[in-house]
Amino acid sequence: MTTPDSAVLRIHCTDQKGIVAQITEFIHDNGGNVLKLNQHVDHAENYFYMRLEWDLQGFSIPKGKIREYFATLIASKYGMHWVINFKQTIPRMAIFVSKYSHCFFDIMARWETKEWKVELPIVISNHEKLRVATERLGIEYHHIPIDKDNKLEQEDKQLDLLKKHKIDFIVLARYMQILSPKLVTEYKNHIINIHHSSLPAFAGANPYGKAFERGVKLMGATGHYVTNDLDEGPIITQDVIPISHRDSIADMKRKGKDIEKTVLANAIWAHLNYNVIAHNNKTIVF
Amino acid sequence: MTTPDSAVLRIHCTDQKGIVAQITEFIHDNGGNVLKLNQHVDHAENYFYMRLEWDLQGFSIPKGKIREYFATLIASKYGMHWVINFKQTIPRMAIFVSKYSHCFFDIMARWETKEWKVELPIVISNHEKLRVATERLGIEYHHIPIDKDNKLEQEDKQLDLLKKHKIDFIVLARYMQILSPKLVTEYKNHIINIHHSSLPAFAGANPYGKAFERGVKLMGATGHYVTNDLDEGPIITQDVIPISHRDSIADMKRKGKDIEKTVLANAIWAHLNYNVIAHNNKTIVF
Amino acid sequence: MTTPDSAVLRIHCTDQKGIVAQITEFIHDNGGNVLKLNQHVDHAENYFYMRLEWDLQGFSIPKGKIREYFATLIASKYGMHWVINFKQTIPRMAIFVSKYSHCFFDIMARWETKEWKVELPIVISNHEKLRVATERLGIEYHHIPIDKDNKLEQEDKQLDLLKKHKIDFIVLARYMQILSPKLVTEYKNHIINIHHSSLPAFAGANPYGKAFERGVKLMGATGHYVTNDLDEGPIITQDVIPISHRDSIADMKRKGKDIEKTVLANAIWAHLNYNVIAHNNKTIVF
Amino acid sequence: MTTPDSAVLRIHCTDQKGIVAQITEFIHDNGGNVLKLNQHVDHAENYFYMRLEWDLQGFSIPKGKIREYFATLIASKYGMHWVINFKQTIPRMAIFVSKYSHCFFDIMARWETKEWKVELPIVISNHEKLRVATERLGIEYHHIPIDKDNKLEQEDKQLDLLKKHKIDFIVLARYMQILSPKLVTEYKNHIINIHHSSLPAFAGANPYGKAFERGVKLMGATGHYVTNDLDEGPIITQDVIPISHRDSIADMKRKGKDIEKTVLANAIWAHLNYNVIAHNNKTIVF
Repeated sequence: MTTPDSAVLRIHCTDQKGIVAQITEFIHDNGGNVLKLNQHVDHAENYFYMRLEWDLQGFSIPKGKIREYFATLIASKYGMHWVINFKQTIPRMAIFVSKYSHCFFDIMARWETKEWKVELPIVISNHEKLRVATERLGIEYHHIPIDKDNKLEQEDKQLDLLKKHKIDFIVLARYMQILSPKLVTEYKNHIINIHHSSLPAFAGANPYGKAFERGVKLMGATGHYVTNDLDEGPIITQDVIPISHRDSIADMKRKGKDIEKTVLANAIWAHLNYNVIAHNNKTIVF
Repeated sequence: MTTPDSAVLRIHCTDQKGIVAQITEFIHDNGGNVLKLNQHVDHAENYFYMRLEWDLQGFSIPKGKIREYFATLIASKYGMHWVINFKQTIPRMAIFVSKYSHCFFDIMARWETKEWKVELPIVISNHEKLRVATERLGIEYHHIPIDKDNKLEQEDKQLDLLKKHKIDFIVLARYMQILSPKLVTEYKNHIINIHHSSLPAFAGANPYGKAFERGVKLMGATGHYVTNDLDEGPIITQDVIPISHRDSIADMKRKGKDIEKTVLANAIWAHLNYNVIAHNNKTIVF
Repeated sequence: MTTPDSAVLRIHCTDQKGIVAQITEFIHDNGGNVLKLNQHVDHAENYFYMRLEWDLQGFSIPKGKIREYFATLIASKYGMHWVINFKQTIPRMAIFVSKYSHCFFDIMARWETKEWKVELPIVISNHEKLRVATERLGIEYHHIPIDKDNKLEQEDKQLDLLKKHKIDFIVLARYMQILSPKLVTEYKNHIINIHHSSLPAFAGANPYGKAFERGVKLMGATGHYVTNDLDEGPIITQDVIPISHRDSIADMKRKGKDIEKTVLANAIWAHLNYNVIAHNNKTIVF
Repeated sequence: MTTPDSAVLRIHCTDQKGIVAQITEFIHDNGGNVLKLNQHVDHAENYFYMRLEWDLQGFSIPKGKIREYFATLIASKYGMHWVINFKQTIPRMAIFVSKYSHCFFDIMARWETKEWKVELPIVISNHEKLRVATERLGIEYHHIPIDKDNKLEQEDKQLDLLKKHKIDFIVLARYMQILSPKLVTEYKNHIINIHHSSLPAFAGANPYGKAFERGVKLMGATGHYVTNDLDEGPIITQDVIPISHRDSIADMKRKGKDIEKTVLANAIWAHLNYNVIAHNNKTIVF
């Protein structure tokens, strides 16, 4: 006997009267049971967001037809952007990593202990450093070095691997490389990056050194989707930790690692559970 | 020209198929527009909670009839516990206070600056201490001293005042008196208390002294509804702040005040905005 | 019988061998007892900071001579920047405020309840708004309107008042005016400002609107000393609170107020207790 | 060319005049340079704590004689409890673990990436589960099952291993077994445990279930030294994370893991760097 599947619908569109009623009726009239419903209206923009999860046990529309029926009966009437995912379909994640390994090891431990329902078929890196730590878990490791001259062709190799392994989303676990627009566009709102930061933010080289010199009292990290504006994509998660003058630059880096790995893990969790709707460089995280 | 009113519905009941559809249809079919909808199912208990706010502009059921229609057409069918409030009706709050005044002054400042939409007709205290600070704002101050022998009769005086002033809810701003069951029952889930605490919690006298001796690293506060079990009612808000060995007991008390006033203010805000559903000694705060 | 006074020494200078020994010997040899000693070496800069508080009971150097003796016997040998304050001398604070009143009311309540050991003889404002709330506490309120043309002459009036009232330090409780270099220089590291912020920071007009559009998940505040670089002075205290898409711009402002008033109060506390050493656009907060 | 070593002195004793002067003179007169000095007086108890780190380059007392000289010249005069450690001596840590592996993997990653200066020769477990994850790093794994009848003899085996491997301190990474007084006494203030908790704390079985039923809004963790009173030893580190009604018991456990691993890591870091002084069931963490 198997647990029946459930479906997660995420939509966004201009706010219109009766959307919630229409959708919940659609679920109910066809025998579904709403498990979770979250809705948000941005009144400033007159814009509507919803995430709805329902139980497919007893749902009268066959799983393979749900998307078609929803598109025809509901989405087309309201001009919705929408996506439906099924909980029993395990998402497939690729990790991109360079030499900093704190986020990498944190993700690997969560994968190895099955904390997350996710497939992790490949790790891609511009260095050899983490091959052993990857392959001992039975995961493929692809060393694809990047330099100024070969970036586009190497990204084509990356894209081939991503397609071959049917990768749904990419995690840049401190990858330290700027992706080209082609890859970013292909995986729009499906590439998660972790960015360290402080208040105020210090642009350019040596941000920790600048933050130290300024004597900031907080270190932070931001998990966000990658866009073509470096570190400027829609924010998924953020957190900070207190620091003081007693923290050297080395201490700041060490503490920064801990906040980075937790914030990135939380961003991945939100993405994995279909909790995020990204729209106009902003996220709604239900 | 006036802004049209909006209504806030809060319900809880055993989870049943189609509840959300029924309610949103009811709103929609009668010309209402959903402003905010939050729903939660406790799957462990098979229990359903919802808060729904809708715009009354164009709503075809007259405001004075909405409760009756909702009760008849929806609530009775599902065995719902429910309440409907209207945003233009300003809630009426009474403050109970003793000698500790940090929460009192914080609330007064929010009231004086109209941060909250709330009426504050009376302050009741078992001491004279805060009379001037109350009356200079044009608020009535009632000194009702409490001792072991007169508690019940003095609470009757309090109840008379609460009724006379049509008080909707009571805030115990460090009132330092245990209320009798009569008053607690009369204002069930409408009396908010603030309770300081630490990890671990230290029962009995001198909790700060015990927390200091144990060297705890966090001080906290809990805003909760009052029940007949002292400090054990449904939790609305909680927060903590870090402390260290460098904090004396006096420092712990000083820092405790800041976290208490913020946590209490957040609990009041949640209550004022009809964001809280209390059920079975637990709250859902939407 | 009076409690004996204690002295607080703060120094900073290039790190040199034996500084701590020299100073603690100086205290000890003259019969003083060290109450608190905090020391910090910035190894990157080879720079030394210390705060030392000692009991004057039984100290053989008369209070009025301590500064002279310290300067001669210790400070001159090490090229120290130093200051000595006495705990029984109550610092005198002036509040500058505009129309936003949350920090103002928070400070007034702490003053009225004697939470802080501070004199508060005057409030200076470019608006009349908070006159009543000031004068009812017996504090002088000075309305000194500022516009583009009169800033320097109005600041001279402010300076006259500050001198007349022997003000030690100024708190900009959301004053919303940029001070001229003359006033900033006169009160170098003695003007505390509160600055709201988010991650990333949004420069220019309407920062809340920009933070909302970007969907930031944290709102913060920074308490700092004022320098001639707007919002760029040495940071004393910082904190953040979580926000989400459910927070409107109005909610962000409301939550921002709470974090601002706490962060500013903590900065004032640190300053009042002589816990802060500012050097090179950075603070050491012991 | 090697970096010269530095020494860390930690003392505690009844507060007496001149202690700081005596010790800093001792360092200075023998050619040492103070790198960090932290001192704390508990005025309520008239008790003195100090941590002092100094550079041994140019220090005229040979490293092997420092303890003897300090004992004779200083400690004996003041009745001090004291310990001196050398930074170049790498501490040796043993991990005790059961089946919950989140803290284990976090520690392993820090060890594998050399984030900490620590030797990790053995992992001891009452289960086989984490053998592979241990041995692949070249660390010995000892499976020592514990039941009611064999606890004391199995602990003797553990003690033999700890001695054989010259273990300095033990980390209970969610070990789930109560240690006998013999082992606790042998490693007094050298066994670090991680304890999850909430406000209020729920004793006995199923604390997550009880916290869920009560609707707590924070989950916490406490890192502490193990004493014979279960979960009641001196607290080293604490932290909390917010939760809400939307978190199921499974979510609470998942979030609890993240806070547990960070809090435990911070406690280990404090211990490893000789930042902790434990006295009377309380810690001073410099």
